[in-house]
Amino acid sequence: MDNSIPYKTYLAEDELPDSWYNVRADMKKKPAPLVNPATLKPCTATDLEAVFCADLVKQELDDQNPLFPIPGDIRDFYRMFRPSPLIRAYFLEKALGTPARIFYKFEGNNTSGSHKLNSAVAQAYYAKAQGLKGVTTETGAGQWGTALSMACAFFGLDCRVYMVKCSYEQKPFRREVMRTYGATVTPSPSMTTRIGEKINREHPGTTGSLGCAISEAVEAAVSNPGYRYVLGSVLNQVLLHQSIIGLEAHTAFRKLGIMPDVVIGCAGGGSNLGGLIAPFMGEKLRGERDCRFVAVEPESCPSLTRGRYAYDYCDTGRICPLAKMYTLGADFIPSANHAGGLRYHGMSPVLSELYDQGMMEAVSVKQTDVFAAAQYFARTEGILPAPESSHAIRAAIDEAVKCREEGRAETILFGLTGTGYFDMTAYQAYNDHSMSDYIPTDDELEQSFAKLPKA
Amino acid sequence: MDNSIPYKTYLAEDELPDSWYNVRADMKKKPAPLVNPATLKPCTATDLEAVFCADLVKQELDDQNPLFPIPGDIRDFYRMFRPSPLIRAYFLEKALGTPARIFYKFEGNNTSGSHKLNSAVAQAYYAKAQGLKGVTTETGAGQWGTALSMACAFFGLDCRVYMVKCSYEQKPFRREVMRTYGATVTPSPSMTTRIGEKINREHPGTTGSLGCAISEAVEAAVSNPGYRYVLGSVLNQVLLHQSIIGLEAHTAFRKLGIMPDVVIGCAGGGSNLGGLIAPFMGEKLRGERDCRFVAVEPESCPSLTRGRYAYDYCDTGRICPLAKMYTLGADFIPSANHAGGLRYHGMSPVLSELYDQGMMEAVSVKQTDVFAAAQYFARTEGILPAPESSHAIRAAIDEAVKCREEGRAETILFGLTGTGYFDMTAYQAYNDHSMSDYIPTDDELEQSFAKLPKA
Repeated sequence: MDNSIPYKTYLAEDELPDSWYNVRADMKKKPAPLVNPATLKPCTATDLEAVFCADLVKQELDDQNPLFPIPGDIRDFYRMFRPSPLIRAYFLEKALGTPARIFYKFEGNNTSGSHKLNSAVAQAYYAKAQGLKGVTTETGAGQWGTALSMACAFFGLDCRVYMVKCSYEQKPFRREVMRTYGATVTPSPSMTTRIGEKINREHPGTTGSLGCAISEAVEAAVSNPGYRYVLGSVLNQVLLHQSIIGLEAHTAFRKLGIMPDVVIGCAGGGSNLGGLIAPFMGEKLRGERDCRFVAVEPESCPSLTRGRYAYDYCDTGRICPLAKMYTLGADFIPSANHAGGLRYHGMSPVLSELYDQGMMEAVSVKQTDVFAAAQYFARTEGILPAPESSHAIRAAIDEAVKCREEGRAETILFGLTGTGYFDMTAYQAYNDHSMSDYIPTDDELEQSFAKLPKA
Repeated sequence: MDNSIPYKTYLAEDELPDSWYNVRADMKKKPAPLVNPATLKPCTATDLEAVFCADLVKQELDDQNPLFPIPGDIRDFYRMFRPSPLIRAYFLEKALGTPARIFYKFEGNNTSGSHKLNSAVAQAYYAKAQGLKGVTTETGAGQWGTALSMACAFFGLDCRVYMVKCSYEQKPFRREVMRTYGATVTPSPSMTTRIGEKINREHPGTTGSLGCAISEAVEAAVSNPGYRYVLGSVLNQVLLHQSIIGLEAHTAFRKLGIMPDVVIGCAGGGSNLGGLIAPFMGEKLRGERDCRFVAVEPESCPSLTRGRYAYDYCDTGRICPLAKMYTLGADFIPSANHAGGLRYHGMSPVLSELYDQGMMEAVSVKQTDVFAAAQYFARTEGILPAPESSHAIRAAIDEAVKCREEGRAETILFGLTGTGYFDMTAYQAYNDHSMSDYIPTDDELEQSFAKLPKA
């Protein structure tokens, strides 16, 4: 086996980035601002501080400053699970017989099982620094809720998680991880909020949705003194924190003396992809180095590839700010898709704007093809990937096979955002050949687009 | 935070050990040989080769050669998940307010979730090198079966796992991981072996036991041409492979310029503890450096602390060789204990002999105390530990607290063998305060000892 490049490249602890990178600073045309649903004017800091921590609001609104220093306590926490390895996929390359060099940045080696912890610890830190008692949030598949529970346990903050009821029941193990870290986990819709009561009254027996859980979490934050709401994706601040992924990868590549030709990542709300590509995209925006970027989304929830670029609500309850983003419509309910983290109707405004500017490509992939790639990857590279991450694996394998066919030795980097240990019911469906694919029809999407807010 | 020692110490890939270390070579009084149950004479290579791979039999019987070179293909596979980090438990030290320096060697960053993969890949490699079609084994909690499935997928070997029926039903996710790696998983007792049929006939509705699953796996191996049986603990060969844990830790400590005063590990069959302590024990046996060693076992299955040092059967079906070991008796059935990996009635002959010679200490700990330590550790250090590993955490915390009380700044190393992601029903019982403790009575143990084979 080729030994010129190590299987795993770890940075030393003193090579850890000391600042996050804000890609908006290098964008000539900036992402559109969040809009207050009451006034329909751009959100001010004051608007946002009722819901979010003050320091995070500053990060959210700042599209000029390229670097935000990472506070020492967050850097210490990062040392628990960072640097994450940049892995050369030697075994996958060999199995595919491709001349491409495949690398992946693996974010799954922590108890939350994903990259979500990178932003959870930052958000918990700023909440603690502001003297808050606790934070509220929602979780679907449970990765974000788990990450936030860990961060809150560390900083001694109360953590209240509204977990989509069907996940609460179907994923009891994720729930127990959160409880082990001291979080309160409430199935949503619950009877503990006005919006939850209303939904339960109007839809008896409902198993909930992410949009509803967001609304409950926001209500719980604004109606409890000393609490704020935190969110694990979509927002600019989250992409800022997640830039740690790309910054580490960039440093590791620099040490190896190479750079990727293409960077591939799965995209739900965009937190992982936005973080992974940040410094490479910065180089492209500044005209220093070109690179392709590929967002991979499920065919069942194709916001970039089939959505509209428009102002839309971030939550089903329509109480959060409006964002300009690629969206399938706030009422769009994706079919039961096992890749829970990619079921969001919209996409990060930063990524939406970059995509609209032609700086980034997007593809959508079929669920059974994704699991075929996941199984192939597990057997060759050893790591059992999360369904979400496996979307990127699928696209990376397709790219590497194209390289083989065309005799091109390009360097591919993809983001392996997490592990699939809590997703074995999805794997079981694949193993049992009972997994189905679903693609929304044009009519369905048109009906959803018709409900988009008027310009 | 103190930065003189990194939070995580990773060896470079060229610092990976190139040989396993055989601690028996440095023991003046050797462990007693395995005995053939038919002849009651020491097992010969020929006896063992009917069941085990030839190269592994050589390793099993060799108590003279200190070093066994690790074949290149195994070293390549190790690069997937090794070197494992040696972690300085800064956050745990701070939370405990102890002057002790606590380190742990973390083996959980791979899909099998534990150290078991270190030996699984070696055993699969030698089976492949011998031209076999496949291997059979048993699994209880599922960690060993998962590890073996991964290794067999990599080398293209068929893998047949007999999984204790109650685990098969209660741990469907572990089963699905094995299936994802292409293994055949059969609930034991099954109707596919003579011994399984017999047990099902005599005990209708039984949910099985590890002893029964071993007997089925051995029968399946000897009755299928091209198959051999492999085992994940107890055997000398397994401890040899697991020495990679201790060798890496030893090298890392040497680079840091310190050495542990005490090494602590959980002990079921002994594979992790034997591997972790190997090079440090070698120094002690050769009179080069002293060090304390502590085996930690559950109070519910206390083979070292309350067992007899005697020849006993390794399996309930009494078809495997006899081993001289600390044992509770082959018929001893531990109470339902969530730390599935520590429920074996006996203990590695190597560790048994070292314990008998006074080279090693042993303590037993209560299950609820173990989970209290597990939760404390999860909240301070971030990693959600396996119940088995948490026995070592309990003892390490107790040692560190003693250091605080006595004002001693000793250096503690413990083995964190794995993660608890597939053990959340146990955590749930702890979170719900419905977990119970069980200690066998003296009468129970005496009844079990009465059935030990006559000398």
